[in-house]
Formats: sequence, C-alpha cells, structure tokens
Amino acid sequence: MFLESTREVRLASRPTGTPTAANFEIASTPVPPLKAGEVLVKNLWMSVDPYMRGRMVDRESYVPPFQIGKPLDGGAVGEVLESTSPRFKVGDVVLHQFGWREHFVAADTQVHAVDTRLAPPQAWLGAIGMTGMTAWTGLTRIAHIKAGETVFVSAASGAVGAIAVQIAKLQGCRVVASVGNEEKAAWLRELGADAVINYRTAGDLTAALKAAAPEGIDVYFENVGGAHLEAALNVLKPNGRVAVCGMIEQYNATEAPKGPSNIALVIMKRLRLEGFIVSDHWGAYPEFVALMAKWLAEGKIQTRETIREGLEAAPDAFIGLFRGENTGKMLVRLS
Amino acid sequence: MFLESTREVRLASRPTGTPTAANFEIASTPVPPLKAGEVLVKNLWMSVDPYMRGRMVDRESYVPPFQIGKPLDGGAVGEVLESTSPRFKVGDVVLHQFGWREHFVAADTQVHAVDTRLAPPQAWLGAIGMTGMTAWTGLTRIAHIKAGETVFVSAASGAVGAIAVQIAKLQGCRVVASVGNEEKAAWLRELGADAVINYRTAGDLTAALKAAAPEGIDVYFENVGGAHLEAALNVLKPNGRVAVCGMIEQYNATEAPKGPSNIALVIMKRLRLEGFIVSDHWGAYPEFVALMAKWLAEGKIQTRETIREGLEAAPDAFIGLFRGENTGKMLVRLS
Repeated sequence: MFLESTREVRLASRPTGTPTAANFEIASTPVPPLKAGEVLVKNLWMSVDPYMRGRMVDRESYVPPFQIGKPLDGGAVGEVLESTSPRFKVGDVVLHQFGWREHFVAADTQVHAVDTRLAPPQAWLGAIGMTGMTAWTGLTRIAHIKAGETVFVSAASGAVGAIAVQIAKLQGCRVVASVGNEEKAAWLRELGADAVINYRTAGDLTAALKAAAPEGIDVYFENVGGAHLEAALNVLKPNGRVAVCGMIEQYNATEAPKGPSNIALVIMKRLRLEGFIVSDHWGAYPEFVALMAKWLAEGKIQTRETIREGLEAAPDAFIGLFRGENTGKMLVRLS
Repeated sequence: MFLESTREVRLASRPTGTPTAANFEIASTPVPPLKAGEVLVKNLWMSVDPYMRGRMVDRESYVPPFQIGKPLDGGAVGEVLESTSPRFKVGDVVLHQFGWREHFVAADTQVHAVDTRLAPPQAWLGAIGMTGMTAWTGLTRIAHIKAGETVFVSAASGAVGAIAVQIAKLQGCRVVASVGNEEKAAWLRELGADAVINYRTAGDLTAALKAAAPEGIDVYFENVGGAHLEAALNVLKPNGRVAVCGMIEQYNATEAPKGPSNIALVIMKRLRLEGFIVSDHWGAYPEFVALMAKWLAEGKIQTRETIREGLEAAPDAFIGLFRGENTGKMLVRLS
C-alpha cells in the first residue's frame, strides 16, 4: 500500500472564550514511508474531550500545550494498514494518542492493541477507555465510595458522568445526577439514578440538591464547577469527599471565575477536595479493564454515543461539548 | 472553703460582623455546693480562639452554638480548690472546657489533670495544648509533610501558626511564613522561618509567594482564606496539599466572601484540600504531648503569649484576635 498524504486538524489560533471554527484548520500532510518497527494506521474513531480546551492555552500544565500550526492530538482508535513491526499485523485495531488526523505513521511502542472481542473499537475511547477509567478512578481511587453512600454526579449525561453514575450504582450507592435537559434526565433515570436534577430549570441548586438528598451527600463527583460546587459544599455531610475531575463551566472563562464563596465549609465539615488526572492512575488500567469488560458483558453498563462524521466535523464536535450537545460520549467517526 | 458566687462572661447578643463589647456581658452566678465526685475549680488562665466566633452564630456545626444569656465556654486551666473526688486533690491543676468564668463546679470526669513539671499551666492551652495539637495535626496527620518539602504557613505569628512553623522546621521542611507586621516578621525569622511575607505591604501575594518559594510550595497550612488561599493555589506544586485549619478572614464576613477564583487548579495540579477539626484527632493527643514535652524541654519550640488581665478583659482579648493584636497565644489571666 502506498499513501502519499493524509489530512489533519491543526490549531489555527488560540481561542478566547468558547472555541470557534476559526481556531481550527484542516490541512494535508505527507505520509512518510515506514521505517523498521513502525505502523501505518488509518483512524476509525477519535475522541473529543473537554480537557483539550486546557491544552489550547499556552501555559505550563500536566501536558504540553498544543502549538499553533501543528496538529492537535488526543485519544483515537485505528486499524493497522501496514506494519514493519513484529508486534502488529495488518488489520489490528490499536488505541493511541494520534487523534485529529486520518492516518499516521508511528513507532510500534506508541500504539496499543485493543481486544475488540471485549468491546467494539470506539468503546476503547469511552466506557472501557479513558472515559470509563476516569469515572472509576474518581469514585474508587479518589473519593473511595462505599456501599450505602450518597453520590452526586454533575454533567451526569456526559461521557464520564454517565459511567460514574452507573459505577456508583453498581457499588451500592444512592446516586443524584445533574443534567441540562429533560431528555438527558430521562436517560439518567433509565441508568438507575435515584434522583435527577435539571440544573437549567431547578432554580436554587442547593435547595434542589437538598431535596434530592435530604440527609446530605457523602461524595461529589465534580465535572462542572461554579454553582454546582457551591451547592455540593452546602449539602455535603461531615467528612464528605469531592473528586474533582473537571470544571467545564470554567474552561472558556474570559475573566476570573467566581470561586465557591462557601469554601470555609471544608473546615467545619472536614471535607476533602481532591483533583485528579486519569493518566496518573494508568497503572490501575488493567484492573479497570477487567472490571469493565465483565460489566459490559453482563449488560450492567449502558452507553450512548453522539457521533459526528468525518474529520471536518471534529472541531464542531469538540465545540459542541461546551454546549452540552452530547449525550454520553462525543465521538468523531473517521472511516 | 465556701464560695457563694462567681462571675462569668455570657453571650449578650449574636454579633453581626466583627464582635463588639456589646455582644458580651459579665454576670454573677451562684456556685453550688459540691456533690460527690465533683471539684470546685478556680480558673488561672483561659484561652480565646478564633473558632469561637463560629459558635456565636446560631447554626448547626460540629459544636453546638453558644446560647444568648448563657455563659460562653472554651479551653481553660484552673486549680482545684475543693474536691469530693478521689481523683483530684486541692491544688491540682486541671485542663477543661469551662473557660470564660472565674470558678466552676464540675464532675471529675469533665476536668483533666495536667503535669506542670512538663510545661507551665497556660502552656496546656498553647504549645502543648489544643493550639500545638492543632498545628501538629494539620502538618502531620492532614498534610503529611515530609523532610525537604516547602511549607507555607499563614497567620504565622498566631498561636497555631507559630507552632506550625517550628514543627515544620523540626521536620526538616523549608518554611515560608506570612504575617501582618514587621515586628511579627522579625519574630518569625527568629523562629527559623526561611522566608517571611508581610502580607499588608507585600502587594500581590502570588508574586510575593513565588519570590519566597521559586520552586513552589508542597504544603499550605491555611489559617486565613481569601487572597492567601488564592496565592497558595497559584504557587502549589503538583500533588500539593492544603491543610485547612481556619479562614479567619471570613469569620466576620457579613456578605458571601469571594471564593478562590483559581479553584480549578486543583485538577491540573492534582491538589488536595482537606479541612480538619482538632477534636477529631484527640486520640493522638498523648503521642503529641510526648513529642512536644521533649521539644519544649530541649528548647526547640519557642512561644510568646499576649496576655490580658482579668475576666473583664476576655471579650476584648477575643475581639483582638481578629485585629491581629496577638503575637503567639492570646490568653486571659484570671488569677
């Protein structure tokens, strides 16, 4: 097989506020011939994730920022088209970080085989991939949820949130979920959430959360920030824990966001807030995969996907995350 | 001995904002005769502590609120004047929670003998009492400081702060201290602080903290809140910890305080903020007493006291805490 060029999405300019199409550009790029120990991969699916917004800012962080004029990257799965590596053969499905492009050539150490008998290719970006691993890590390795506890999950219809709700239920917790519309609320009820708050219509979020959890919450799985965090602090029980996974409400802020005015409650209630990045926990991924494969096989974890078609749709798919356009995992199908 | 009446400080009204003298009243109260197993105690010293402000608000908390028209209470040490208990004899020095009064009668289970050979009576309210135990708990049981780490302590000339600075130094940490005037700054340097910030003159606190700790801080011992917390979040290293002991800046707030606008840094830096109340850790008090008695005997912990004389001075001593009038422990000498 000979492939002269492919296409990739590059960062055209750094966004101010919510990203727009103008911050992205699609460009052709040559595909180099394979050296020894390399693979040529055709991407099947790519992930768009809120954390990528942080990489569009030029600042020191846990991953280097995206560079203007260079391709973006992120989780994706693809099929091996050509291999000079003994580790991969044509047709293998691999997981890697070369998203935002149609094809690429990489060393065989930079891609990882996935077992499509356990879950379909795109699930390795979702329930059994980084998304599910994030939900499981926050609940079990950060918040240390216990059966019988009440867990509040915000952005509960999002990729991570929807898995977090179901894992918490599987662990014997009572779950309160917050979502942004009634359709999502109905889905969360299907997933087993014991109470669902539509934060757009609920009015005072503290009152809504108190009504949903009259005895308080033990754990808050934080995806949103702002009023959600403030309400959670108000309603957390003594010794409550907050697993801080994300604060999507703040990622596009153009001025300093309002912090939680009730942060002093951490003293009186002896609360623990802990931020985490899933990549720090990658050593536990095999343990998670075994668990999740079993849950998926038993039909105990349900997923939805919001799918956009083609590389051209990738910027809009990403931007849609901040408009709540996805139910479950937002994916771009590349092939 | 027969004592007909004594005096106590009562809560006259609940403060709005910073407490004033009008929120307190001094009243006579009868001293009942002793029943079996009781002691009559004459107080020698009483403690005033910022946390008492929280008890002046009528709300659910980890200790019940003070009641209007009733005596305040809090840590104090006194001398047994009369005893019908086999556990105490006249002249014993005891630690207890019957502060804000000159004498009291209580069951022998409500007072605790202290060893004045290890430390003078008032030290059992300070370095070797709740104050020191609070500093030690926050550093070792919440923040888990390690030798070689950089620790930032705010309100470092306060009772808890000054002990925290010295314990962190004894554990091999580098210490940055923040205080409110130059005299306090000079004392902190004497105590071994590696860098001292006068927050009233430092200008931008984040810049000052970065200058004092160019490689960042590992631990923040939080006593203040507001701009201090925001600066600490900015300068904490990845995996940094915040032991949240107090937020004195907020205790007298009459409107919702500004929360930390940079709270999202807990995600990128994987920070842990944990509030604590020393009384939850009382089981470890014997361990702490053994340590602190040794440090005091070796001259490794220095203390200062700001002393007010007589029960009448107690309200003003308490109010002075919020004006930064104390260097080290604020005490009221009652006898």
